[in-house]
Amino acid sequence: MIINGIPATQISAQDRGLHYGDGLFETLRVTDGQPEWWSRHMTRLTHGCARLAIPLPDLDRLHHEALELTHDCARGVLKIILTRGSGGRGYRLPDTITPTRILSLHPYPTYPAAYWAEGVCVRLCDLRLARQPALAGIKHLNRLEQILARNEWQDETITEGLLRDAEDNFIEATMSNLFLVRDGVLTTPDLSGCGVRGIMRDLVLEQAEAHGIPTMITPVQSPHLMAADEVFLTNSIIGLWPVKQIISLKSYAVGPITRRLSACIAEFA
Amino acid sequence: MIINGIPATQISAQDRGLHYGDGLFETLRVTDGQPEWWSRHMTRLTHGCARLAIPLPDLDRLHHEALELTHDCARGVLKIILTRGSGGRGYRLPDTITPTRILSLHPYPTYPAAYWAEGVCVRLCDLRLARQPALAGIKHLNRLEQILARNEWQDETITEGLLRDAEDNFIEATMSNLFLVRDGVLTTPDLSGCGVRGIMRDLVLEQAEAHGIPTMITPVQSPHLMAADEVFLTNSIIGLWPVKQIISLKSYAVGPITRRLSACIAEFA
Repeated sequence: MIINGIPATQISAQDRGLHYGDGLFETLRVTDGQPEWWSRHMTRLTHGCARLAIPLPDLDRLHHEALELTHDCARGVLKIILTRGSGGRGYRLPDTITPTRILSLHPYPTYPAAYWAEGVCVRLCDLRLARQPALAGIKHLNRLEQILARNEWQDETITEGLLRDAEDNFIEATMSNLFLVRDGVLTTPDLSGCGVRGIMRDLVLEQAEAHGIPTMITPVQSPHLMAADEVFLTNSIIGLWPVKQIISLKSYAVGPITRRLSACIAEFA
Repeated sequence: MIINGIPATQISAQDRGLHYGDGLFETLRVTDGQPEWWSRHMTRLTHGCARLAIPLPDLDRLHHEALELTHDCARGVLKIILTRGSGGRGYRLPDTITPTRILSLHPYPTYPAAYWAEGVCVRLCDLRLARQPALAGIKHLNRLEQILARNEWQDETITEGLLRDAEDNFIEATMSNLFLVRDGVLTTPDLSGCGVRGIMRDLVLEQAEAHGIPTMITPVQSPHLMAADEVFLTNSIIGLWPVKQIISLKSYAVGPITRRLSACIAEFA
């Protein structure tokens, strides 16, 4: 682990990341010593910093620190946390903000190969995501909703949980973005009210467009998933997992557009 | 500062409090070596632990640790943070949860005496609180909304900012609860959708009832504040501040019920 450029394992207990979740994070897949889609992650981090008024760190230095951790890692996960640092009285921002950057390297999670080849089984979460446009899209450190949602099930055969807002719009899953295909059109939920705008979500949308697959970003409700031919999940660690079943809703086959986009992403990486 | 019973200033950078805001906090006023309203704070903490499925720490030990910090403090603020500790893969809870407890002592903030005697000037925040019943009422560590709201103004003559939800219901202020008086009835907003249920809010409601002042917990909108005779704010650090002006809405005199409840609270402490 590297904290503010120095090998370390602890941070100040005054850090605003701890006190308020006042910060952002990125999780990057590491392959052959390299953090993948670096510039895309940095674009999202930059956007998050602007939204929260956290000074953007020197991205070249951050990249250097990242490579220091990852250079002899064949396969892993790099997590970067950026907080507003210490200081300030209560919620008020400090007069001088000195962000804290924490980089840590983790083993690549052990998922069965069938998750990619045959798809995953998912459930509907009871917890509803709150609508908060001021925080929607960015990957901030306020993640209690995801924790409560992930704690709704312990059944190991269920891989992910789909999250809806209070108006029954499907938004995402606890750690991934949601896509569906119907009549050849690729659709993913609108994230203007809540949800994380995943790196892989953007990449899949771009790849679809580049391959002549029509795309739509729109509210998604239960009838859309009932009518869908293919459903899949994405994030930058897993890439793309087909959904083979949404419990109590519908089962799906791994379809041609899912296969095609999955191949595009694998090739791109 | 005391962390897990030991004098320390740093915590593990793997703590879920940092990674996800996965925890709770309490801020207690310290007077003559004692943290005030201890059992009320512990009741809220207990409720928060139940809601987030964080094992409740031994409250006697916590009290002992608190007194260790506060015993020679004439006036200050004790902050207690309780996180879910380290571990788990992603949002999923660890198989064994070992909470982290962080106790820190801070100087009592220097507010002008006029805040109590003549009241404070407050503004309406643009940011709207998201409706999330699963987190409403408890004092959890996901506080980006409060930070964004508090960062909306720098004018030192404005002491607090009132927060509404997306449906124009007034909920609270950035660090305090909101009360209004009309025709002798004390009203405070319903917190079932969002907001923190303050220790002092409960105490004021109880004192009002004990003194024959009718109380109501109900949605509060702009016309209610326009029609109010008295408005005040509460939290366990400040006690009670009359509101003398809500900018662009209305000015208020410090009224008889405000004075009476303010005296009750001072006496109670």
